[in-house]
Amino acid sequence: MLNEAVRVIARVTSQPEKVEELKSILLNLIEPTRHEKGCVSYQLLQDKTDSAEFVFIEEWANASAEAAHMTTSHVQEALSKAQPLLAKAPDIYRYVIIA
Amino acid sequence: MLNEAVRVIARVTSQPEKVEELKSILLNLIEPTRHEKGCVSYQLLQDKTDSAEFVFIEEWANASAEAAHMTTSHVQEALSKAQPLLAKAPDIYRYVIIA
Repeated sequence: MLNEAVRVIARVTSQPEKVEELKSILLNLIEPTRHEKGCVSYQLLQDKTDSAEFVFIEEWANASAEAAHMTTSHVQEALSKAQPLLAKAPDIYRYVIIA
Repeated sequence: MLNEAVRVIARVTSQPEKVEELKSILLNLIEPTRHEKGCVSYQLLQDKTDSAEFVFIEEWANASAEAAHMTTSHVQEALSKAQPLLAKAPDIYRYVIIA
């Protein structure tokens, strides 16, 4: 395929009193993820007006690299630790880059 | 300020039968926006499973550059042309980069 790259936007919403604890868990994902094969970029954002809203903006070389990411021990461990701190289930959307 | 950069995620949802028409209007924003002062990156995405969902991922040097962007003639013209093609009002969120 000509353009296999996948962009992911994953929104993670903290319970109000768990923001710093969740932030620390999410920050721990950065380094191991950036070293994964096929990880082009992986950035963590926090909403300017609602600090309980975090977003990962991700770019993967292809869909299989992104699928492999979800099975890594660092993601599985973060999901398990983050679960009780979330206000709702994460929203994960996958996109193709058109420009 | 140490880190003034602003990330914007703007979701734009087309009416089902207007996807290609809206896509063309959105694509016309790319070049003039990338030439704006303070535009670090500006990318247009389309949802892999729902082609009516477009997202701009933007990075601006600071909040005033992003505010100026919204007042440009190319944005104002695109908003006016896109308005009748949208399924709902665009969602625009602003973030700080934490990693």
